[in-house]
Amino acid sequence: MPTSHEHRADGHMTPDQFRELGHRLVDWVASYMEQPDRWPVQSAAQPGDVLRQLPDEPPQEPGAPDEWDAIVRDLDDIILPGLTHWQSPGFLGYFPCQASGPAILGELVSAGLNVNGMSWATSPAATELEMRVTDWMAGAIGLPESFMFGRAGFASPGGGCIQGTASEATLIALLAGRSRVLHRPGRTVAPDRLVVYASTQAHSSVLKAAMIAGLARDADDTSRVRFVATDADLAMDPGALADVLTEDLAAGRHPCCVVATVGTTSSGAFDPIAKIAGALEDVGVTDDCWLHVDAAHAGAACICPEHRWILDGVGRADSIVFNPHKALLTNFDCSLLWTRDRASLTRALSVSPEYLRTPANDPGRTIDFRDWQIPLGRRFRALKLWFVMRHYGVEGLRAFVRGQIRMAVLFESLVRADQRFEICAPRHLQLVCFRMTGPPGIDAKLLNARNRELLERVNLTGRVFLSHSTLPSPDGGPERFVLRLAVGSTSCRDEHIRTAWDIVRREADST
Amino acid sequence: MPTSHEHRADGHMTPDQFRELGHRLVDWVASYMEQPDRWPVQSAAQPGDVLRQLPDEPPQEPGAPDEWDAIVRDLDDIILPGLTHWQSPGFLGYFPCQASGPAILGELVSAGLNVNGMSWATSPAATELEMRVTDWMAGAIGLPESFMFGRAGFASPGGGCIQGTASEATLIALLAGRSRVLHRPGRTVAPDRLVVYASTQAHSSVLKAAMIAGLARDADDTSRVRFVATDADLAMDPGALADVLTEDLAAGRHPCCVVATVGTTSSGAFDPIAKIAGALEDVGVTDDCWLHVDAAHAGAACICPEHRWILDGVGRADSIVFNPHKALLTNFDCSLLWTRDRASLTRALSVSPEYLRTPANDPGRTIDFRDWQIPLGRRFRALKLWFVMRHYGVEGLRAFVRGQIRMAVLFESLVRADQRFEICAPRHLQLVCFRMTGPPGIDAKLLNARNRELLERVNLTGRVFLSHSTLPSPDGGPERFVLRLAVGSTSCRDEHIRTAWDIVRREADST
Repeated sequence: MPTSHEHRADGHMTPDQFRELGHRLVDWVASYMEQPDRWPVQSAAQPGDVLRQLPDEPPQEPGAPDEWDAIVRDLDDIILPGLTHWQSPGFLGYFPCQASGPAILGELVSAGLNVNGMSWATSPAATELEMRVTDWMAGAIGLPESFMFGRAGFASPGGGCIQGTASEATLIALLAGRSRVLHRPGRTVAPDRLVVYASTQAHSSVLKAAMIAGLARDADDTSRVRFVATDADLAMDPGALADVLTEDLAAGRHPCCVVATVGTTSSGAFDPIAKIAGALEDVGVTDDCWLHVDAAHAGAACICPEHRWILDGVGRADSIVFNPHKALLTNFDCSLLWTRDRASLTRALSVSPEYLRTPANDPGRTIDFRDWQIPLGRRFRALKLWFVMRHYGVEGLRAFVRGQIRMAVLFESLVRADQRFEICAPRHLQLVCFRMTGPPGIDAKLLNARNRELLERVNLTGRVFLSHSTLPSPDGGPERFVLRLAVGSTSCRDEHIRTAWDIVRREADST
Repeated sequence: MPTSHEHRADGHMTPDQFRELGHRLVDWVASYMEQPDRWPVQSAAQPGDVLRQLPDEPPQEPGAPDEWDAIVRDLDDIILPGLTHWQSPGFLGYFPCQASGPAILGELVSAGLNVNGMSWATSPAATELEMRVTDWMAGAIGLPESFMFGRAGFASPGGGCIQGTASEATLIALLAGRSRVLHRPGRTVAPDRLVVYASTQAHSSVLKAAMIAGLARDADDTSRVRFVATDADLAMDPGALADVLTEDLAAGRHPCCVVATVGTTSSGAFDPIAKIAGALEDVGVTDDCWLHVDAAHAGAACICPEHRWILDGVGRADSIVFNPHKALLTNFDCSLLWTRDRASLTRALSVSPEYLRTPANDPGRTIDFRDWQIPLGRRFRALKLWFVMRHYGVEGLRAFVRGQIRMAVLFESLVRADQRFEICAPRHLQLVCFRMTGPPGIDAKLLNARNRELLERVNLTGRVFLSHSTLPSPDGGPERFVLRLAVGSTSCRDEHIRTAWDIVRREADST
């Protein structure tokens, strides 16, 4: 379909051309939404398959009128077969990355406006809408007012902002903790004596943050990143944390940040925030040691009052991150970081060169979110969260989350009903860890290999995509290879969970 | 306008509703593109104006069928007046943040697919298209093949990837440099002896990167961030760099990263890459000290062969960043970082937990871009750059850049023709620094105050938006407050430049 208008002499797309192509691509996205299972969930592409279909050299001349026909054809023929389809109802691996109509429209409007909200002055509405929606979401998941801007607005000691990812939020928490302890009056702390703590089940982003911050030389250097033992449920053991802290203090080290994970990646376990805060208090480092809660995935569940207990004690934490871009229908990227102590956070990140100073950013007058994040520039991400919350309403979001958890319960019950399988960790929220068992006495490594093979076979069907992890063995043997089913994309329904189980069983028969 | 379909029982937007609302919002964006100067460029909003118009509490119930009417109304009535309009032809402050039709469509498609390209396996096409378009752009701006994947593909020692911002890219360069020097065999380097170098005119992101990496305690701690003197053109003085390096080496410090800025934010000056590389060689730290080129803004000009001299010597640098999201028509965020030494870069950032391991990421088989960046997750940003390059073609992009530079030349000539004004630094590419002069002997501070007032008056007209910086005074007096005009948005034409100048002159008359 040639566009109906000639190219402008200057080569830009005219508004009319944009209307026409925009409608066409909206329809293309709608078709994608209509048949999210048209393609294998996991791409069947081999390394280099896509590269080979793309010309070595970029086009030199402006696209001819039919160039957009070719672009759409290439989307269909080259790009779609090369994707792993995170929006497929059969996508049940990792954690979800949910798109929704309202969020996609938010991205469209954000792209159309293309403002850079680095400072309040560079687009007041970008900053103020973000303040409002982070307050909204803080209330919706039951955070205390200390994490909100609330009536104090620009003058509040706490508040939230939208980051790209939880990895960035965790890095920022570490930097804020480091900055706070280094700037405590009346004491000198050697930066190379600072230590960070998380459970053995914490996300890789904690180690990565330590590497970036200079607390770890590389991924093998964990001398200042202490991974604390977990209990039988794979949640951080507060007693073990207290022991490690005591040991480090005795050795002249300075705890600067503890990351409590609420919903670990491997098994969904909940570190007990209140008890961890208690351990910090017992050891006497409450004021020195930043307590960060990584609720990247599980935070979504807290929109339902019945699940809020997992954040018990969060009022004693210094910061918390939760990703609406995982399980709350808001397109990637949208990761919410709240803090009770934004002064420490911004001191770690604020640089104010002359070219960014405006009368509006005199201290206390407004907020510049650039001082809350790693990058300088920032997209207008609050729009999509605003659209999602207005479209669904808090009750609509609750209903969605409950439906997703119900599907995980369904899958768990299917696994439990089959004696050839076992649940490998308590099911928490939308995540089920399971594996095939073997005959009594089967070699642990052989069993792991069989489960790995099972996972590969399941994913090769193209109808469902699961991922894996390893979990400690209760008997102290080799780590267990487990399959992870995490519900799920926006389009996932009971029938897809049943289908996934049928496929797992069928493939197990021939493994 | 109620949507034509009832809400689904589950509250999700149906594909048909998405079509209808998508068309409507595409039209809304097209209208915005049609009249980008309908609103004051700089928002007239006062702190809190937008907040006050947004309800304290989020909606509890799902939106009624007419909720989207209300959303669009609020976009018009609350959001648009609260924005500083970066797409207005009168937006001539900071550096531009150019949107274009093709790039907006790229964002739309990316949002519709919403894949997370953290690993090759999580969407092969996202990784491979990114490899191809970074190669395309590397060739288009004249980078040597050592920065490309090229025929070696996954096995190449160099290559590019898309970051969110140049700030992140500069941080990564610093981390890569640190990692390389710390891992050099046969020598032990104390991490707290590492030093970073940039000119006094370098972007604030260098200091911020040092703070994040732990090389600076806060923004006031520049003991390990050395700002090197500049020459009369405000470009780094390679001799001064050599002196500082020599001094540090003698004191037992370890240079780990030099940032050469090609197109400084304050005046657009070009640090001489080849001479800087020469200084590193003379001092004998070529292998130890990572040379990073920050061409965030000026990189776009290199798509024109006549400007490529500004990157002379880049083949001796270890990495270079350039932002198509500034002056090359690609929506924010799209910042390209290339390196010749990706092994050092990924060693600084790679953590491979079990749950992210796949057969495809065995060493050398594929590339996982998560190991090239700060976050874990990543959006499919290559799409928009692909669309832009296909729509405009390299020649179309060249014509656009030349047109933008021509407008800066026009503005410069207008300033020069008026004896009440002066050009304050050599005009480089699209950036003009100027100020009102005063009567001979005018107090330097008074003159600064008058120019500050002039800037405020100009921006208050709402028809044009300029920004400012301070530049060293040639006579060693107080820094000069200068106005910055940076061309410009996609919609900027000669007439807007003439209007901007008319407004500046008129406001100067009454200042």
